[in-house]
Amino acid sequence: MAFDVRRLLLLEANVGDLLFWAMMSHTARLTVTCPDAFGIVAAVASFLTQLNCNITHADQHSSDPQGGTFFLRIQFETELAPELLRTAFHEVARRFDMTWRMSFGERQRMAILVSKYDHCMLDLLWRQRSGELEADIPLVISNHTELEGDVAFFNLPFVHLPVTRDTKQAQEEQVHQLLLEHKVDFIVLARYMQILSPWIVSRWRHKIINIHHSFLPAFIGAKPYHSALERGVKLIGATAHYVTDDLDEGPIIEQDIVRVSHKEDIGDLVRMGRDIERQVLSKAVKWHLEERIVVYGNKTVVF
Amino acid sequence: MAFDVRRLLLLEANVGDLLFWAMMSHTARLTVTCPDAFGIVAAVASFLTQLNCNITHADQHSSDPQGGTFFLRIQFETELAPELLRTAFHEVARRFDMTWRMSFGERQRMAILVSKYDHCMLDLLWRQRSGELEADIPLVISNHTELEGDVAFFNLPFVHLPVTRDTKQAQEEQVHQLLLEHKVDFIVLARYMQILSPWIVSRWRHKIINIHHSFLPAFIGAKPYHSALERGVKLIGATAHYVTDDLDEGPIIEQDIVRVSHKEDIGDLVRMGRDIERQVLSKAVKWHLEERIVVYGNKTVVF
Amino acid sequence: MAFDVRRLLLLEANVGDLLFWAMMSHTARLTVTCPDAFGIVAAVASFLTQLNCNITHADQHSSDPQGGTFFLRIQFETELAPELLRTAFHEVARRFDMTWRMSFGERQRMAILVSKYDHCMLDLLWRQRSGELEADIPLVISNHTELEGDVAFFNLPFVHLPVTRDTKQAQEEQVHQLLLEHKVDFIVLARYMQILSPWIVSRWRHKIINIHHSFLPAFIGAKPYHSALERGVKLIGATAHYVTDDLDEGPIIEQDIVRVSHKEDIGDLVRMGRDIERQVLSKAVKWHLEERIVVYGNKTVVF
Amino acid sequence: MAFDVRRLLLLEANVGDLLFWAMMSHTARLTVTCPDAFGIVAAVASFLTQLNCNITHADQHSSDPQGGTFFLRIQFETELAPELLRTAFHEVARRFDMTWRMSFGERQRMAILVSKYDHCMLDLLWRQRSGELEADIPLVISNHTELEGDVAFFNLPFVHLPVTRDTKQAQEEQVHQLLLEHKVDFIVLARYMQILSPWIVSRWRHKIINIHHSFLPAFIGAKPYHSALERGVKLIGATAHYVTDDLDEGPIIEQDIVRVSHKEDIGDLVRMGRDIERQVLSKAVKWHLEERIVVYGNKTVVF
Repeated sequence: MAFDVRRLLLLEANVGDLLFWAMMSHTARLTVTCPDAFGIVAAVASFLTQLNCNITHADQHSSDPQGGTFFLRIQFETELAPELLRTAFHEVARRFDMTWRMSFGERQRMAILVSKYDHCMLDLLWRQRSGELEADIPLVISNHTELEGDVAFFNLPFVHLPVTRDTKQAQEEQVHQLLLEHKVDFIVLARYMQILSPWIVSRWRHKIINIHHSFLPAFIGAKPYHSALERGVKLIGATAHYVTDDLDEGPIIEQDIVRVSHKEDIGDLVRMGRDIERQVLSKAVKWHLEERIVVYGNKTVVF
Repeated sequence: MAFDVRRLLLLEANVGDLLFWAMMSHTARLTVTCPDAFGIVAAVASFLTQLNCNITHADQHSSDPQGGTFFLRIQFETELAPELLRTAFHEVARRFDMTWRMSFGERQRMAILVSKYDHCMLDLLWRQRSGELEADIPLVISNHTELEGDVAFFNLPFVHLPVTRDTKQAQEEQVHQLLLEHKVDFIVLARYMQILSPWIVSRWRHKIINIHHSFLPAFIGAKPYHSALERGVKLIGATAHYVTDDLDEGPIIEQDIVRVSHKEDIGDLVRMGRDIERQVLSKAVKWHLEERIVVYGNKTVVF
Repeated sequence: MAFDVRRLLLLEANVGDLLFWAMMSHTARLTVTCPDAFGIVAAVASFLTQLNCNITHADQHSSDPQGGTFFLRIQFETELAPELLRTAFHEVARRFDMTWRMSFGERQRMAILVSKYDHCMLDLLWRQRSGELEADIPLVISNHTELEGDVAFFNLPFVHLPVTRDTKQAQEEQVHQLLLEHKVDFIVLARYMQILSPWIVSRWRHKIINIHHSFLPAFIGAKPYHSALERGVKLIGATAHYVTDDLDEGPIIEQDIVRVSHKEDIGDLVRMGRDIERQVLSKAVKWHLEERIVVYGNKTVVF
Repeated sequence: MAFDVRRLLLLEANVGDLLFWAMMSHTARLTVTCPDAFGIVAAVASFLTQLNCNITHADQHSSDPQGGTFFLRIQFETELAPELLRTAFHEVARRFDMTWRMSFGERQRMAILVSKYDHCMLDLLWRQRSGELEADIPLVISNHTELEGDVAFFNLPFVHLPVTRDTKQAQEEQVHQLLLEHKVDFIVLARYMQILSPWIVSRWRHKIINIHHSFLPAFIGAKPYHSALERGVKLIGATAHYVTDDLDEGPIIEQDIVRVSHKEDIGDLVRMGRDIERQVLSKAVKWHLEERIVVYGNKTVVF
C-alpha cells in the first residue's frame, strides 16, 4: 500500500521547474470525486504532507453514508511545481478511481453572454473590477447592441452577434469559435434571452452558468414573474444553475428569494427580482471560480 | 347623496341594546370588497365619523389602478351596538355594491384536524394558550389516536374519527356534523394526511386553512421533501393556503423558506421543514383570526 | 364644521391654471403629521372626494392608541392644479393642527457625497439610470478623485472638494453653496468618510441620508466590521439613517443583515457588507423619494 | 515520526472490551484545538485509518492563515472500544500539543433553568421528546412554580428553588449540588431571570448556554425590547451565548433577527421575539450536543 512519492518526483522532475516554483509558496486546490471507500482522506492528507504541502482548508461529503459517491475539496499551500504534484498524484487517484482536478491559482477566463438587460452583467463586471471575482473576461457577446457602451466603459471587448431563427445555427457556431479563440474556460448567461442548442451545451458541459428568474422548479419556462403574480405567491426568487439540454432542469448552484405581497404589480416584481437575480448569479460565478462546486447527477455539492 | 345615519338609528334601534353597548368602547373591524369606484374611502370614513366611531387602522388596495376590485379593512373603536352599526351600514354597502363583514371582537371558534404529526398542532395550542391566538378551540379531530394525550394536556376535547377508503364518506359526514354542532367558524388542517372531498370543501369555502410542506407551486402533491432532495434545490419551504377542490392550488396566505445544502439528508429536511411549517401555519391562522385576509379569485390580499 | 371647498376654489382659482391642469390626471401625495384626534381620516377623505380626487393608496398610523401623534399618507389621482389643492387644504390642516406636505410628482434633486468607495454610489447611479429611482442628480461631490471616471460614465457632473482638518469649515461652506446653487432637495452620503459639522446638518435637517456599516446601535463609530469580527457576532449588517448631530444616532430608515461565521476574515466581512450597504441605502433613498418616510422624535414611520 | 498504534493497542487492550465493542460499529467524534502546525490533518487521518476508523465528516479551521490556532472536528465510524482509541490517540495529541475530546455517542445530560416564561423551555422539551435533541434531561429547576405542570406533562422532574437577594448564595449552592448529583453535563438558561454568581459560572465554564433577547452587542442588559422600540430599529433579534462573568459578553453561538416596523408595539415585539428566542436557543443547544462548537478566546467556531 505504501508508495514513495518522493522517489517518483526525483525520477520525473524537471529540475529547472522545480527550482523555479520552489522559490515561492502558492495556493493550490484539489477537487476529487470517487466511489466512497475506506482511507481516502488519510491517503490524500498523507500524500500532501509527505510533499510538504500545508492543508489550509478541507471539505468532504458522502452522497450516502452507506457507500455512495465521495467528494473532497482541499486547499493547500505548496512550493512545488504544478506538474510535479499532478504527476505524483496520479498514483493516489488511480488507487481510489478518482475523477480529480488540481489547480494552482490560474485565473480562469470567463465569457459573458447578454441580450438587453444590464443588471446581471453590470454586477459581474463591477465585481470583477473590484477584485471580488478573480477572473479574466476576454469578451462579452450579445445578440443586441444596447449594452455595448456599458461594456466599453469597463474596457472589455464587446461582440455583437445577432440571431434569428434562421441564423441560429450559424450564430452559435460563431459564438463557439469565439469562445475557443479566446481560450474561454466557462460562460455566464447574464439574462441571455436565447435557448442554446444541444450541440453547444454538450460541448460546454457544466461550463455554462445561467440565471433563471424564479425559485425553480416553480415557474419553469418564460415569464415566471407573470406566472408568480397570477398564482399569488408570497415569495419570488431566482436560481443559478448549470445549463443542460433540459430547459431549466440543470444542476442548481444557488437560489434566493424576496418577499412580495398583493401590493406589488408586475413592474415591481421585475424590479425586485433584478436584485435577487444579480446576487444569486454573482454568488454562483464566485463559487465556480473558487472551484467550490462539484456536479453529480443533476445536483451540486457546494463546498 | 347625503343620508342621515343618525335618523336611521333612531328608527331601528332597540333602546336596551343601545344603552348596554354604549357603556363600553370596543374594537370593531370592517372588511369590504367591491368594484373600484370614486369616493368609497370618503363614504366609509364619513359614515364611521358621523357615528362617533374612531378609526384606528385602515388599509386599502385596488387589484388594478385602472378600475378593478377594491379592498378595504378598517379597524375602529365604537360604543354603539353591533346590530345598529350593521343595519346602518347597509345603505353605504348597497350604494357601492359591497361584499362586507363587520365584526366586534367576537372570539372565533377554530377546529383543528390532525393525523400523527404533532408539531403544527402543538404550536397552535401553545399560541392559543398564551393568548397569541384569540380563538376558542371547541375540538380537535384526528383519524389517529397518537395525539390524544397532547390535546388532553391542553384540556381540550379530542375526537378520534378513523378513516379508510371505504368509510371516507361517512367519516367526513361525522366531521361535518361535529363542526356544525360545535358552531365552528373555521378549520385548520395541521398536517391532516387526508384529502377532503369536494362536498365538504365547498361547504367550508375559504374556511379551511391547510399547510403544505413546500413553497408552492414547487413540488405539488405528496412527499415534497423527497422531491426537493431529488431536484437538489437550495431552499425548502412551506405554504399555508385555503383549501379548494384543486389540490394544493388554493389561495396562498403565507409562505416561507429555509436554506439547505448538500449536507442535509431526508431526515434533516423533514426536521427543518417542521420549523417552517409551524411558523407559516400559525401566522396564517393569526391573520385569519384578525380578519386580515381577503380572498379574490385564487389570490389573497393580506392587510 | 362644514366648509365648502368648491366655493373656496372658485374665489381663489386662477382660471388659466385650472384649465391647464384639468387637461391631465396626475398623481399626488399628501403626508400629514398631527395630534391624534377624532375624524381626521373622514375629513381628509371627504375633502379629496369633494374635489374629485381619487384615493389610490392610504396608510395611517398612531404613535399611541391612547392619543399620541397621528400620521397619514394618501396617494391620489387628481386633475386639479397643485396650488388650488394646497390652498384649499389649508382649512383642513388648520382644523387639526397638521404639519403637512402635498406633492405632485415633482422630480426631486438628489446630491451624492462620496469618498473612495464606489459600491453605494454606483448602485444609486445605476438605479437612477434604470428609472427605479425617480430623481435628478445635479451633482456628485467627493473629497477624492477616484470616482470621477465612474460619474462621468453616467454623464453626471463631478465636483472634487478635498478636505483637511484645517479646510473643513471652508469646504463645507463650498458644499453647502453648491447644494443651494443646484437647488438640491436632499443629500445622500454614499460612504462619505467625513463627519459633517453641526451647522450643515441643521441646515439640512432630515434631508441627509447616511449609510452606516453595522446594524445600529451595535458597533457605533468607526471600523464596525473590525469590531464585529472581534466580538464574534454571527450577523453583520448595515443601517440607513437620517443624519443628526449625534453621530450614528439619527432616525433609522432601514436595516438589514447577512449571516457570517468563523470562516470569514475581515476582507470577507467588508466584501459581504458592501452588498448589504448598497441595498439598504438604495431602499432608503427610494422610500425618501416616494415620500414614504415620516420622522417623529428620533424614529421613523415608513409607510 | 512513525509509530505503530496497533502495537500500542495490543499492549494495553483489555481483550474482553475489545471483543465486546468489535461486535458493533458506532459513531465517534473527535474535537481538537492546538497551535497551527504542519501535518496535523495527515497525522490524525492516518491514525484513524490505521485503526480501521472510517471518517464520515471532517471540518477544520485556522484562526489565522499565518499560524494561529487550529481547530478540527472529525466524525468517524469505528468498531474499537472508546478507551483503546483514547489511549492510542494520546501520542498524536502530545506531538501537536492538542486540547482534545473524543466522544462515542454518549447521551449528554442537560439541566434547564427557567423562571416564568414557557416558550424556550417548551421548545426544548418538545424537541427532546421528538428525538431532535439527543440528550437526557434529569431535571428542570425554576425559581418559580408556574411551569411545574408543563414539566410534569413531559414526565420530567421539576425542582422549585426560590431565590431572593438574601438567599441567592444558598440557592445557587443548592442548584450546584443538584447539578452534580444528577451528573449534569451542561445547563441551559431558558429565560432564567437571575444573574448567576461568578463562582458558579466558573465551575461550569463553557457549560452554561443563555438566550439573550437582542442581537448582541446591541441592547445589552435588561429590557432590550423596550430599548429597541425606543431606538426605532427595524430589526429585533436574539443571541445564544455561553455565560461568562461579563454579563451578555460571553462567546456568541448563534443569532437571528426578525423584521419589525413602526406598527409593532412593545407587546408585539415581545411576542415576535419569542419565536426568535426559542429557535436560536434550540439551535445552539443542538450544536452543543453535536459537539460542533469550539470556544476560543471570546468567540466560537461552529462547525
